[in-house]
Amino acid sequence: MTNQEQNSLNIEPIGVIRSPFTKATGTPIQSAVAKAAEGCVEVFSAFAQGLVDLDGFERIWLLYWFHKASITQLKVKPYIDSTERGLFATRAPCRPNPIGISAVRLLRISGPRLYVADIDILDGTPLLDIKPYVPKFDHFKVKRFGWIQKIQASTKQADGRFYQEN
Amino acid sequence: MTNQEQNSLNIEPIGVIRSPFTKATGTPIQSAVAKAAEGCVEVFSAFAQGLVDLDGFERIWLLYWFHKASITQLKVKPYIDSTERGLFATRAPCRPNPIGISAVRLLRISGPRLYVADIDILDGTPLLDIKPYVPKFDHFKVKRFGWIQKIQASTKQADGRFYQEN
Repeated sequence: MTNQEQNSLNIEPIGVIRSPFTKATGTPIQSAVAKAAEGCVEVFSAFAQGLVDLDGFERIWLLYWFHKASITQLKVKPYIDSTERGLFATRAPCRPNPIGISAVRLLRISGPRLYVADIDILDGTPLLDIKPYVPKFDHFKVKRFGWIQKIQASTKQADGRFYQEN
Repeated sequence: MTNQEQNSLNIEPIGVIRSPFTKATGTPIQSAVAKAAEGCVEVFSAFAQGLVDLDGFERIWLLYWFHKASITQLKVKPYIDSTERGLFATRAPCRPNPIGISAVRLLRISGPRLYVADIDILDGTPLLDIKPYVPKFDHFKVKRFGWIQKIQASTKQADGRFYQEN
């Protein structure tokens, strides 16, 4: 086994995310600014058994693959800023491992389908994981949040800058 | 290309996480209960440029690979409960895509090394991504959080149940 093979980890979608957003341009930047947007998470039947007990949670984390993101850029100009920033200090999708996380609101579950709101995810996005949003684990009061703290952002929607759009 | 190949996505570690926890048994269950634990995130030099601007953030998300987790179980008995739960309603590591997320406290950055506190991650864990913790994106007030809400958990440390330990 080569070193390359040892270092490479394999993941497989467990479902697909359906949303009103078919292009990056116009998609909400984060779930927090996507109040009205509803979507549906279709979990593949092989994994449906793992959804038991999820309906008690008001909010859930979706982990997903930025399948339309452009190749890695270690310096990016974020949507909400005009200064170039280090990639890891941003939530831009053009990451070495293009994995996104969004805490969406869970409306209801019907079989292997999760109906969610506050969605900021492109239609057709491969789903990697679902985790419950738990205040004790996820809800931290922070006083400092870097360059984002200084931004009076009016931009709430993405454009195509980090995506391969046609 | 087979369907299997089309559906499989490839990820590669961008660094390694160092912590005091060499075995699952005794590792804090979540960063929120790991107050005293400090660790170091060693980012591979090829990605160091992406760390610019990260030092302004009090807390950061680490995304990582549960490299010691046992194979997928869609029903699990969580550490803090005695009832079997659907996997996706838990944060157990034995997931189809064994990706963990932890919001750790960033103490300081020295070159490609991030010194962090509140760490709940095994030593040697492959790092997949770093994102800033941003209140507007990550900090949600939720009233309902399912079975976890009903638990008066005294358990704060893991045991080996979801890991391949030797």
